[in-house]
Amino acid sequence: MPKMTVAELEAFYVTHFPQLGSNHFKIEEVADGGVRVRLRYRDLHLRPGGTISGPALMALADSAMYSLLLAMIGPVALAVTTNLNINFLRKPAPVDVIAKAEMLKLGQRLAVGSVTMFSDGDDEPVAHATVTYSIPPRKGKEG
Amino acid sequence: MPKMTVAELEAFYVTHFPQLGSNHFKIEEVADGGVRVRLRYRDLHLRPGGTISGPALMALADSAMYSLLLAMIGPVALAVTTNLNINFLRKPAPVDVIAKAEMLKLGQRLAVGSVTMFSDGDDEPVAHATVTYSIPPRKGKEG
Amino acid sequence: MPKMTVAELEAFYVTHFPQLGSNHFKIEEVADGGVRVRLRYRDLHLRPGGTISGPALMALADSAMYSLLLAMIGPVALAVTTNLNINFLRKPAPVDVIAKAEMLKLGQRLAVGSVTMFSDGDDEPVAHATVTYSIPPRKGKEG
Amino acid sequence: MPKMTVAELEAFYVTHFPQLGSNHFKIEEVADGGVRVRLRYRDLHLRPGGTISGPALMALADSAMYSLLLAMIGPVALAVTTNLNINFLRKPAPVDVIAKAEMLKLGQRLAVGSVTMFSDGDDEPVAHATVTYSIPPRKGKEG
Repeated sequence: MPKMTVAELEAFYVTHFPQLGSNHFKIEEVADGGVRVRLRYRDLHLRPGGTISGPALMALADSAMYSLLLAMIGPVALAVTTNLNINFLRKPAPVDVIAKAEMLKLGQRLAVGSVTMFSDGDDEPVAHATVTYSIPPRKGKEG
Repeated sequence: MPKMTVAELEAFYVTHFPQLGSNHFKIEEVADGGVRVRLRYRDLHLRPGGTISGPALMALADSAMYSLLLAMIGPVALAVTTNLNINFLRKPAPVDVIAKAEMLKLGQRLAVGSVTMFSDGDDEPVAHATVTYSIPPRKGKEG
Repeated sequence: MPKMTVAELEAFYVTHFPQLGSNHFKIEEVADGGVRVRLRYRDLHLRPGGTISGPALMALADSAMYSLLLAMIGPVALAVTTNLNINFLRKPAPVDVIAKAEMLKLGQRLAVGSVTMFSDGDDEPVAHATVTYSIPPRKGKEG
Repeated sequence: MPKMTVAELEAFYVTHFPQLGSNHFKIEEVADGGVRVRLRYRDLHLRPGGTISGPALMALADSAMYSLLLAMIGPVALAVTTNLNINFLRKPAPVDVIAKAEMLKLGQRLAVGSVTMFSDGDDEPVAHATVTYSIPPRKGKEG
């Protein structure tokens, strides 16, 4: 079972990442082994041709994986990304982007997840990322 | 020899990416097969502990590779990133970040480059990325 | 629907890759958008501690994605891998490894797939790869 | 200064990886922060069109990075690859392949290196990889 709810994750972000603003990413669902995060269209940096920028999708993938990690191990602010690999698959439509993150491995030192991103309402992915976080040493229980 | 100068690249960005602002990234040098791009510290999204965010470094890597591609093939607004792989190596210091991009392969359809990022004044890299762009079909000469 | 059956794929490999031997990888299932490939334990290059080598898993991922691509576009011997990213997740057990490949995008020029690998009988993945193939220009219909 | 010489690395491989054979890869040079490894053409698995197989290059990249890590930290048989990302850049010629590995970061837990591969006698790379190894906890001095 997840160790943090959507509300707890949102409160964690407000406390630890106040500069992100209250409405950059919207965590929509937290389940065992997966989260769903929405990037609102109005927050997107657009590119020529009206498409959503690659960096916006990379930030979304990173954030979705971080949210998933927090949900599974509890609030550990100092976990850091060590590797991110992203494939851009299709030109995103000018709508919200939905990221679905799944944990592939949650180890003592490393967590690896897969993040698939979709234009809202479409079932063909616009991008796919794998993300690795390094987890700082934990004493006994987290949080 | 590069097909675009620093001034021409800056003018291209102002025209095609007006939303990026005039001072987000600063192209410092364009040479045959390589560019140097500076991310100004004041533009950075900071993270807990005062470090520079991963997404800021990913955007820098993507932008440095795009600048290098433009410098080598001329102004082609519709080249798109297809793959970006980044390893985060060290916690960046609270100073400017310098990206050095080198072309590994410039083909007809794909361009692959390597981007190494340093805290200004330090010679150990904070991050390293490889970036692939897909190049749209060109007729005769570019630009 | 797939354009090649398991038997047709096997015949294609025998004709075009005779040096691979007849029993290196075993294609077990071809379905719309996915294939399952088995790496037999006796074919594996082992490493200290009895584990399966990383290169054996990389070759499996590459081969599974190539089989999937062939199944979807028909026999195109000259498609080539342009990028492969693999995360090694758990120490594989000394048994067969099963690779499940799924197509993320099948475009005109690039195909991107996701390959998840499991020790036979276990449902936690030992490795996960994303693989990109470049597809040579095709005239009219393939196959 | 490196902690292992070419001769010590070769002896280490013979002891710990006897199944690799004595002549699969040839370590040619070990220097501070870099190694050069040769893949002999006669050891290569060939592909249609006479080119060298992707898996042979992936194995070379992995092995070059492992040799570099051993050279820098001393003989630690149980370091394991956690991530490998490779871009295939040009069709290799039917000659030896030379891999040049450089350390990007050597940390307590993770080592990240960059491996550039060339057809012998050519200075345009055929492939480029970044490789991450996880280093088991060490007590006091290594080796």
